Amino acid sequence: MDKELKNIFIHHVYFWLKNADSKTDRDKLVDGLKKLSSVKTIQNFHIGKPADTNREVIETGYAVSWFVQFANGADQASYQTDPIHLKFIEECSHVWSKVIVYDSVDV
Amino acid sequence: MDKELKNIFIHHVYFWLKNADSKTDRDKLVDGLKKLSSVKTIQNFHIGKPADTNREVIETGYAVSWFVQFANGADQASYQTDPIHLKFIEECSHVWSKVIVYDSVDV
Repeated sequence: MDKELKNIFIHHVYFWLKNADSKTDRDKLVDGLKKLSSVKTIQNFHIGKPADTNREVIETGYAVSWFVQFANGADQASYQTDPIHLKFIEECSHVWSKVIVYDSVDV
Repeated sequence: MDKELKNIFIHHVYFWLKNADSKTDRDKLVDGLKKLSSVKTIQNFHIGKPADTNREVIETGYAVSWFVQFANGADQASYQTDPIHLKFIEECSHVWSKVIVYDSVDV
């Protein structure tokens, strides 16, 4: 089986919390992402937290990782304005202090 | 079909090139990653470049995205010391100026 993912659009978001140690806030964000995952154009998703790896090049300060695989940029663009996404932002944006997004397509 | 990826270890690396506009150096890195993908514990991988999205929260300065899915942290740890990985670093590390790694596991 070919292990290479191709013809996809990877949208990977890392969230930092205002209250970094608040389990309540992290749970709220995770619950929001679970609801957000119902957007139809999402092919695959993963809700993560930092692993216990620790080298100089590893960023470990974020609280939640949100990995989403789309078929293409158009699907990602429609996700940005999907009512489910807008509701997620409305309900959850008060818990995060910083967001970094990496959007990647095939080389 | 459930779209949620679970029980996985995501290792996502972003590379910045010393010579940001060098197609030769980017190709060298991409070729190196293709060889690196033969490490047996890799379940899935994607070699990417920044999409053409452009909002304030989006990081677009990197040259190459290297997404790897492992079954668990032990497989990721063994990858770090795999001879194929060490050879990749030996052959390619001179082309990059910065690397950021995000290792994520299920929340």
